[in-house]
Amino acid sequence: MTPYKELEARFRRIGALEEAEGILHWDMSVIMPKGGAESRAEQLAAMKLTIHGMLTDAALADLLNAAEETPIDDPWQAANLKEMRRRWRHANAVESHLVEALSKASSRCEMVWREARPKSDFAAVSESLSEVLGLVRQKAQTKAKVLGVTPYEALLDQFEPDTRIADIENLFDDLAAYLPEFLDRALACQESAGEPLLPEGPFDLSAQKALAAKLMEHVGFDFDHGRLDISLHPFCGGVPDDVRITTRYEEDDFAQSLMGVLHETGHAMYERGLPADWRLQPVGQARGMALHESQSLLVEMQVCRGMEFLTFAAPLMQAAFDGAGPAWDPTNMQKLQARVERGFIRVDADEVTYPAHVILRYRLERALIAGDMEIADLPAAWNDGMQELLGIVPDSDRVGCLQDIHWFDGAFGYFPTYTMGALAAAQIFQAACAADPAILSGIEKGDFGALMVWLRSNIHGKGSFGTTEEILVEATGAPLGTEAFKSHLESRYLN
Amino acid sequence: MTPYKELEARFRRIGALEEAEGILHWDMSVIMPKGGAESRAEQLAAMKLTIHGMLTDAALADLLNAAEETPIDDPWQAANLKEMRRRWRHANAVESHLVEALSKASSRCEMVWREARPKSDFAAVSESLSEVLGLVRQKAQTKAKVLGVTPYEALLDQFEPDTRIADIENLFDDLAAYLPEFLDRALACQESAGEPLLPEGPFDLSAQKALAAKLMEHVGFDFDHGRLDISLHPFCGGVPDDVRITTRYEEDDFAQSLMGVLHETGHAMYERGLPADWRLQPVGQARGMALHESQSLLVEMQVCRGMEFLTFAAPLMQAAFDGAGPAWDPTNMQKLQARVERGFIRVDADEVTYPAHVILRYRLERALIAGDMEIADLPAAWNDGMQELLGIVPDSDRVGCLQDIHWFDGAFGYFPTYTMGALAAAQIFQAACAADPAILSGIEKGDFGALMVWLRSNIHGKGSFGTTEEILVEATGAPLGTEAFKSHLESRYLN
Repeated sequence: MTPYKELEARFRRIGALEEAEGILHWDMSVIMPKGGAESRAEQLAAMKLTIHGMLTDAALADLLNAAEETPIDDPWQAANLKEMRRRWRHANAVESHLVEALSKASSRCEMVWREARPKSDFAAVSESLSEVLGLVRQKAQTKAKVLGVTPYEALLDQFEPDTRIADIENLFDDLAAYLPEFLDRALACQESAGEPLLPEGPFDLSAQKALAAKLMEHVGFDFDHGRLDISLHPFCGGVPDDVRITTRYEEDDFAQSLMGVLHETGHAMYERGLPADWRLQPVGQARGMALHESQSLLVEMQVCRGMEFLTFAAPLMQAAFDGAGPAWDPTNMQKLQARVERGFIRVDADEVTYPAHVILRYRLERALIAGDMEIADLPAAWNDGMQELLGIVPDSDRVGCLQDIHWFDGAFGYFPTYTMGALAAAQIFQAACAADPAILSGIEKGDFGALMVWLRSNIHGKGSFGTTEEILVEATGAPLGTEAFKSHLESRYLN
Repeated sequence: MTPYKELEARFRRIGALEEAEGILHWDMSVIMPKGGAESRAEQLAAMKLTIHGMLTDAALADLLNAAEETPIDDPWQAANLKEMRRRWRHANAVESHLVEALSKASSRCEMVWREARPKSDFAAVSESLSEVLGLVRQKAQTKAKVLGVTPYEALLDQFEPDTRIADIENLFDDLAAYLPEFLDRALACQESAGEPLLPEGPFDLSAQKALAAKLMEHVGFDFDHGRLDISLHPFCGGVPDDVRITTRYEEDDFAQSLMGVLHETGHAMYERGLPADWRLQPVGQARGMALHESQSLLVEMQVCRGMEFLTFAAPLMQAAFDGAGPAWDPTNMQKLQARVERGFIRVDADEVTYPAHVILRYRLERALIAGDMEIADLPAAWNDGMQELLGIVPDSDRVGCLQDIHWFDGAFGYFPTYTMGALAAAQIFQAACAADPAILSGIEKGDFGALMVWLRSNIHGKGSFGTTEEILVEATGAPLGTEAFKSHLESRYLN
């Protein structure tokens, strides 16, 4: 066996263990009784440590060196080898006792957060979160040295490879300059158009679930290869051949959950569309979280909150809940699904105010990682930031700094990818529609076939073959920018 | 760190990975969409191989040798070391490519079986099962050499350590001589007592589930540390701090599912009662499947199909389904729950005919492992055996050789533990009632507290401290025999 082929075998095993970890994580969020938390933390730590041990095995380093010295003709194999080295670099930057400590602390903290959030009890989770932050700082510093970047960039690199603070600031500065004034104009436009009508609930939960499943299938979701379940914080988990998305239902509002489901379906389609020939290999996996988020936002924001899709979907919604009256008209529905409002909750935010939520978290986590801020300061700093960026202040931490799972689960450096994803979604959808006119006309009929064919060939099927920038340039003709996003906002919110 | 302490750390990691495997297995049977089967097989194979790699690591062998040369004062540590060696011996007898091949073949075969069983399509699964058998034979032969026993005994040893064919034949010969005549007497007795009344259905499935959960709680099941779900083949899975039992509900018969749930609850109580101080260590795990089955049968057969429990439970059943009339009287209920009948299905069999089902499978799997029979011969041999042992012949493989998951999942050598468990259940319950009169009077009131205190101290809390025989002798004063079982049958079925 060549060194490269031996590496493939080893990474295949690692990939399978990571898939197993994904299922255990899904189970923890959806199924597990609370008394299972301690043992699950130990299981996940054992998994992480085992994978870490495989990636830091001296024989693997020798194989990587040997494979890199041998010419490789196949471009996918070459890309795979490059991704193997990236994985190796990240793993070998951190010692196993830190991996273990961080895994256990994150699992514990996430469980405490689950109890603390509904009670708005920041104090209850503050100690656990400080412990997590301390360990994440250590990890960031160690990785920064190895990767030759700043500690915060080292964290970014785990979620969206090769991202630099300068790139983020360029994009975010542009948005921060553009959006406040745009928001005022959009709100004025919205006011002059008059209040849309609200369909009257309650909306039966099982009818909501059936409608969600039906629309998921229209997007292309295959229930033989996935599930829809309930969890506190909606997410897309599982593995490419068994993609599991979650939501939470509210009796008095069906649209929030439904749009959330369509969002997660976008993630799921990306996972399902990853190159099957490279399953379990590093190059076969999702490129990064910005591209991942671009796929969920493309489905939710670009498509499903747009007029074409709602022309098709509004009658299905009406039928699902036996609705009557003008509230169910597609035009009214579309107005409802494109409301702009200054609000506290990121996951409920519209696409105009969303970047402000991300910029807030980006600033706070940069300060936390740099050691310029401690966990005790978080609630106050959060509220100050909300005042500054959106002009509103949450009245409780439940709708403030306790709302998101990320930090409590150890994920710092993740938030910027949401807004990078929003920009990419607009840019990719613009390119797709330009390339194939059948895409928009299909969506009007609930047929996502043409869109998914284009996405599979230009985005999903690329896996990690090339960088995000390379994939974007090839698919859209340009690196990540703000133009398509602004043009989308203007066409949707200023009419 | 001493060699022993280093071993504890390594086995703790192995234990956590095995727990993770348990959750993945549960998910596969309860949650996973069918399109996830191939990737799950790969995940489970990767887990098995990884654990196997840890157990066959040369450094582990050195540590075991070093630890065995050092005197250990603590008797639990000494017992733990002994169990580590047992684990080591089993793992090192088999090469990793065989472990991998068997894991993948079993996962595949189990999935094929799931489709083939309802269609009674033995031909569809025959090739997969032959592949599994071929690999199991290889494993049995290799282990036999290392353990110094016969190939079939080597398989038995995986489920119930130190069991010899001679022991099984002693017990089974005794039963085979006793039961046919006893069965005739019991059936005569039953006939002369007259047909019990059958409560009228349909029985609402959610009411069935609520009743099951309520009675589980009476037995002592803690839903903060476990779940009740649905699967094709009911089982007890999960991990001690998150024990997951499954059942399947039928609208026209609530009792079958309910008694199944109480059976699995007995397994669950054993898992929950394992010594918490030794969690994840070999000595902290269940002693063997005979003792495990003794705990499920003790709860189901000894207790829940008895008059004391049904005096308490019959009114709850009646209330759950709004039942009326004499069919719901405890005495009638008890008659119904202690019906004896020659039937095709092992899991539905009463305790009088159950041993015949086990003896059939024991004979067939001995022949299969010895190479005296091939898979193609199985359906005919099954039917011949049923004719000989119970005087009846199934009209389809669905209720014949396709009914049980075990062989299709690679588990040969498991079946004898069911009947060993039935014998142990009678022997243990007899000893428990003699030791504490509060046990039976508690059960009459739905209070399993005294019983569980006794079981936790005499059985559950022992984990793998000592052999099954040592545990039984200490708890009941005698090694495994047939006397208590016969005496139980006589008192229940000849009155």
